[in-house]
Amino acid sequence: MTDAQPRAVTIAAIAAEAGVSLPTVSRVLNGRSDVAPHTRERIEELLRVHGYQRRGGRSAPRARLVDLVFNDLDSPWAVEILRGVASVAHADGIGTVVSAIHRRPSAAREWLDNLIARASDGAILVTSELDPELHSELRSLRVPAVVIDPAGVPTLDVPTIGATNWAGGVSATEHLTGLGHRRIGFIAGTPTLWSSRARLDGYRAGLQNAGLAYDPVLVVEGDFGYEAGFRAGARLLELPAPPTAIFAANDQMALGVYEAVRRRTMRVPEDLSVVGFDDLPESRWSSPPLTTVHQPLAQMGALAARTVLRLVNGESVESPRVELATELVVRYSTAPPASSA
Amino acid sequence: MTDAQPRAVTIAAIAAEAGVSLPTVSRVLNGRSDVAPHTRERIEELLRVHGYQRRGGRSAPRARLVDLVFNDLDSPWAVEILRGVASVAHADGIGTVVSAIHRRPSAAREWLDNLIARASDGAILVTSELDPELHSELRSLRVPAVVIDPAGVPTLDVPTIGATNWAGGVSATEHLTGLGHRRIGFIAGTPTLWSSRARLDGYRAGLQNAGLAYDPVLVVEGDFGYEAGFRAGARLLELPAPPTAIFAANDQMALGVYEAVRRRTMRVPEDLSVVGFDDLPESRWSSPPLTTVHQPLAQMGALAARTVLRLVNGESVESPRVELATELVVRYSTAPPASSA
Repeated sequence: MTDAQPRAVTIAAIAAEAGVSLPTVSRVLNGRSDVAPHTRERIEELLRVHGYQRRGGRSAPRARLVDLVFNDLDSPWAVEILRGVASVAHADGIGTVVSAIHRRPSAAREWLDNLIARASDGAILVTSELDPELHSELRSLRVPAVVIDPAGVPTLDVPTIGATNWAGGVSATEHLTGLGHRRIGFIAGTPTLWSSRARLDGYRAGLQNAGLAYDPVLVVEGDFGYEAGFRAGARLLELPAPPTAIFAANDQMALGVYEAVRRRTMRVPEDLSVVGFDDLPESRWSSPPLTTVHQPLAQMGALAARTVLRLVNGESVESPRVELATELVVRYSTAPPASSA
Repeated sequence: MTDAQPRAVTIAAIAAEAGVSLPTVSRVLNGRSDVAPHTRERIEELLRVHGYQRRGGRSAPRARLVDLVFNDLDSPWAVEILRGVASVAHADGIGTVVSAIHRRPSAAREWLDNLIARASDGAILVTSELDPELHSELRSLRVPAVVIDPAGVPTLDVPTIGATNWAGGVSATEHLTGLGHRRIGFIAGTPTLWSSRARLDGYRAGLQNAGLAYDPVLVVEGDFGYEAGFRAGARLLELPAPPTAIFAANDQMALGVYEAVRRRTMRVPEDLSVVGFDDLPESRWSSPPLTTVHQPLAQMGALAARTVLRLVNGESVESPRVELATELVVRYSTAPPASSA
């Protein structure tokens, strides 16, 4: 399409001319029944008169917006993903619209209405608890969607992007067994999350590779929060035979372990080695700087943006699921166990 | 305006009908000379025919978008502000479009072109180095703008929102003098930033209140980065008469001081008290949890959003400059000096 050709009318212009809201026009376009008959007739007439091109046609006008949806914006995790999405989108002249829905169905509903109103071209969902209805509505609206790091078994029919959580769990554990640790504690993430289970299984596989038995006493359930890491760390250190190293399933829990160690007037790594997962900025700024499994959050965001922009352009994607590689980053929180000296 | 009245035509529809880009229509609307005469004529004709209402009129259609612009998205600082902006905007059905311009004039230019293309209703700039040209162009486009925590003397003619940096500097210093510290080091932020200078002056005033002389040997210049805090902390600890407490002008530099202390096999707060500024999430997760001056970043973002939405609605704002209160949060990184025990 060249700039000289007249562009198709926008859904916003149709809504304005009909004197109705944008969601009403969307409902008509999507064949839903909850629109008054005379309103539907008027909208359909306007769509015909203006030759409205439905989404997916290459000549449809674009809002040049992509929506990026988080459950919460209270973690440095979020800004890493946003950085990747915004850099790719910005380079393409696309605006990144950021929302937080706080796991509330009403907020998710409002977000979807707003997305319809601004006629966003696509959506990237960074959300642990996916509402299937929301997905089916996005589909019926023909809004391309991509999901980053979904919870549960990924059976969605949208492309998903994650990291190699299992391999990361193996590499963290092998780093510790390689240093000579034989009693390695594990603090698990939220048990319902796919990523948590993969990291735990990686820990088990890492132990097995080193010929160590899995000891359930050394495994404590957490929830990816700092407080849970602090409590679990304290519990492990109080064991009759405490571990000489702890692998926490994310950085925030690892920092909680640091504090449990400090409260006992012990030191990391002299008295306890600690490994995290994520490699958030604060892992570099912790004291000592944290050995952790780097999760390429910014690259995951960038890939999600490139994927959704391909879908917006009507192109297909090679694979419904892509996992980017994790990588162990060794800093100063791990050392051989004191007992081996 | 009720939904039943026909809305005015959008700038996007005019651009589409004229077969030109949105920035071209904007240039005509803003009386700029860099548009070919026959293009200008055609656009002006279309504006007349459709009765286009210029910005500021209550009946002009809205994109329901606000742009939020950072220099960089590499700090947890950014996500706190975003959280405040997005919550206010979302509640109002407004999308928050987030961009990073990396202090590059070309990226700022691209951002402004994108803002014009999506016809954003307003802009919130979280930027330390303000390009006056960019501001004057926003003004000529009649896009309401608000600036959060600007650098330099705030002589802009847009509303600015900050925090009480000076008062925060005083309260941090008085907390330390109140604990009995007499030699208190200060690590300053980027010297060109207004907020840095206010925190330094607060430190001086706090010393004065306690009857202590300002000693330039105890003041080291930093840049708000972790590494600068680490180096400055090391330098202060190597002094013949080292300080018993250090006030760092932000949390990241305070965490750098933690690491300088750890490398000397010393402990915070037993051997050195440390106070930061900002109260980022990682301050709570540091070991020990950091005593710091809370800067209400999320509230500053929320106020910026409310202010820009008022301007979008043609309302006025009470004050061109608002400073929200900072508050000292005492955690576990400060104690009386060891020598006083």
